[in-house]
Amino acid sequence: MPQRPHRPLPLATPAGVEVLTRILTQGPIPRVEIARRTGLSQAAVTKAVAPLIEAGFVTDQPSTPIEAENQLGIGRPVSPLTVVANSVSVIGLKVTPTALIGVTTDFTAGIQTVRHQRLDDTSPDSVIERLSDLAKELISSLKTAGPLIGVGVAVSGDVDGRHGVVRDSPFMGWRDVPVAELLGKRLKVPVVVTNDVRALTVAEHWFGVGVDADSFAVVTIGSGIGCGLYINGEVVSGAYGVSGELGHLPLAPGKLVCTCGRRGCVETVASSDAILARTRETTGRADLDLAGAIELAHAGDKHAREAFNRAGEVIGSALAAMVNLVGPELVVIAGEGVAEYDLYEERMRQAFADHAFGAAGACRLMLRSHTFDNWARGAAATVIRSYVRGEPPLQR
Amino acid sequence: MPQRPHRPLPLATPAGVEVLTRILTQGPIPRVEIARRTGLSQAAVTKAVAPLIEAGFVTDQPSTPIEAENQLGIGRPVSPLTVVANSVSVIGLKVTPTALIGVTTDFTAGIQTVRHQRLDDTSPDSVIERLSDLAKELISSLKTAGPLIGVGVAVSGDVDGRHGVVRDSPFMGWRDVPVAELLGKRLKVPVVVTNDVRALTVAEHWFGVGVDADSFAVVTIGSGIGCGLYINGEVVSGAYGVSGELGHLPLAPGKLVCTCGRRGCVETVASSDAILARTRETTGRADLDLAGAIELAHAGDKHAREAFNRAGEVIGSALAAMVNLVGPELVVIAGEGVAEYDLYEERMRQAFADHAFGAAGACRLMLRSHTFDNWARGAAATVIRSYVRGEPPLQR
Repeated sequence: MPQRPHRPLPLATPAGVEVLTRILTQGPIPRVEIARRTGLSQAAVTKAVAPLIEAGFVTDQPSTPIEAENQLGIGRPVSPLTVVANSVSVIGLKVTPTALIGVTTDFTAGIQTVRHQRLDDTSPDSVIERLSDLAKELISSLKTAGPLIGVGVAVSGDVDGRHGVVRDSPFMGWRDVPVAELLGKRLKVPVVVTNDVRALTVAEHWFGVGVDADSFAVVTIGSGIGCGLYINGEVVSGAYGVSGELGHLPLAPGKLVCTCGRRGCVETVASSDAILARTRETTGRADLDLAGAIELAHAGDKHAREAFNRAGEVIGSALAAMVNLVGPELVVIAGEGVAEYDLYEERMRQAFADHAFGAAGACRLMLRSHTFDNWARGAAATVIRSYVRGEPPLQR
Repeated sequence: MPQRPHRPLPLATPAGVEVLTRILTQGPIPRVEIARRTGLSQAAVTKAVAPLIEAGFVTDQPSTPIEAENQLGIGRPVSPLTVVANSVSVIGLKVTPTALIGVTTDFTAGIQTVRHQRLDDTSPDSVIERLSDLAKELISSLKTAGPLIGVGVAVSGDVDGRHGVVRDSPFMGWRDVPVAELLGKRLKVPVVVTNDVRALTVAEHWFGVGVDADSFAVVTIGSGIGCGLYINGEVVSGAYGVSGELGHLPLAPGKLVCTCGRRGCVETVASSDAILARTRETTGRADLDLAGAIELAHAGDKHAREAFNRAGEVIGSALAAMVNLVGPELVVIAGEGVAEYDLYEERMRQAFADHAFGAAGACRLMLRSHTFDNWARGAAATVIRSYVRGEPPLQR
């Protein structure tokens, strides 16, 4: 395994961070446009950009001959700035109870390599070993790519990103697992640990809908119901590290006990496990798996359909609750559950329309096709953000 | 009525706005500390401050002889900067279905005069006339105070602040009332119209808990249940003008129809009208008023107590839902309903503890004693914020 050096960015000031962020997320972008959008002087932009070009993170050279030609004869070229995508490499890992997914990306979170590994044992020790192996395999694959800036790990549940600790992940059965420390000392690279939905939100913020939207929510539907929020120019992280727990709003009918131990959570009715349990119960077929329940529902079985309708109703109410509180411009619906979207969409949209308050209901619900690779890419995006902002790495 | 000139602030740049905001909300504060907190250079701070001192909005003179004395003999004085409170005057008005409340404040939202007026007719025309009269009376009272910078009007419901229009206020029975235009042409001063709970949140942000907290929510309990959110450095306004509609989260049991026309809203159980209706229904005493219901509950009547308990339960669940989604550092509980806080606090805290997810439950619930004057002060705070930020006045 090649040891790759951590490569510091030449960013001395907050203005430098702001400028690089604009180039990374909105490039190609001319200096004058960065000045306009940030309120910085053109001189300040030029001063911040110079060392980034010098160090090879940013370029103002046209990337194609046509672009170069278009700049001839029209006086001074506009020279839009672009990030040099392969100036650094990033690794993103997503942990699920049954599989590990890993990707390598470039500086713009573009996926280069993907690896999936089945997981048989979810104990922290075993998972950390397997994560370490997967990360090493991905590091070997980097070859000619830029130096590795860090490894991001996305896990569902309550994650203390600042200390790199998974505080409580019901799906993994983990409590207080210091992932950054355990993985960092094996890999000797900076490790960032993040809630998986928040990781997706960071990816949307810098490299997705957030480039154009002033505020948005990412809602993930699947084995859990999650939500990431981007409001007032930043991803919402919660004063105590918890936010976006849409799956644990107390608005499901009945008093079913959730995986988190509380009663009446959205997930008691709307998670894929809850839908399966309901279908088994109402059809009397204890042998069904989720694929079977989906098949039944598609075949028009009224019990199976009712389970999905019930889920759609609660998801729609939860979306309305969220929109009534924070009023985002749009909602991106993602997660592995979007594969069965047709089975709950109608009821979900109806419940949303029933409970969205006034103009809040104008919020667009936008479906995002989803693969597990996206979660891992989100972890990589979180590393990129952390790197650009110069947040101290947890482990080297 | 004296015509008072609008007095423009000498703020040419975003840095100037940032510097004045710090002085206004965190002063007295030395220049060096402003530089540290904003990331601006000391030279930039000094440059921004000079015209503000010159124009009399800010001072670096010690306000007491003792302060002046303490600065002798220790070299160059620290000269902390303070806003000159009486350099401008502001009027804040709160509209309720039964009364108008008006205040005059100084530049720091300190209340100077208060006027209450009973309202018999809630039709927009009549209310605008009465508001205009009240504002003129308050303008006359300004006397030696600084020039008036604007009039703020706080109304419950869906308010389009940008256009100064009350889009939908169920309590007032208003739809699409252009308050800023109607009032502005009568008063010939800038008029700002705002949702009342958001106005309270702006006041807390600049002149209350927001000075120390990184994020907070203001929850108002009374004839409606409202919520203002301060997250990521700004009050949440909602992409479509709606946010913080805690009273319209769909988590009340049963399918009661809300004043907004939707079913299952928090307010169907937790508003003061809902509590009164429930108490009348269960005690069979149609003659009861709210004071009577409160008295019964305090006397231990089990029906009356149950109505308050039921409200407390739903309010606690709604608080948990909000905290699970946005994770604020603290929640300020306000509104006229805090007078009966003892009647629902226990059940509210229990439901909150039952449904708050993980570390989100660490959020402090803080009671704020409340008068109607606070709402009007919030409207004034909104004018001050708008003035400092140089937002274009809607009407002159």
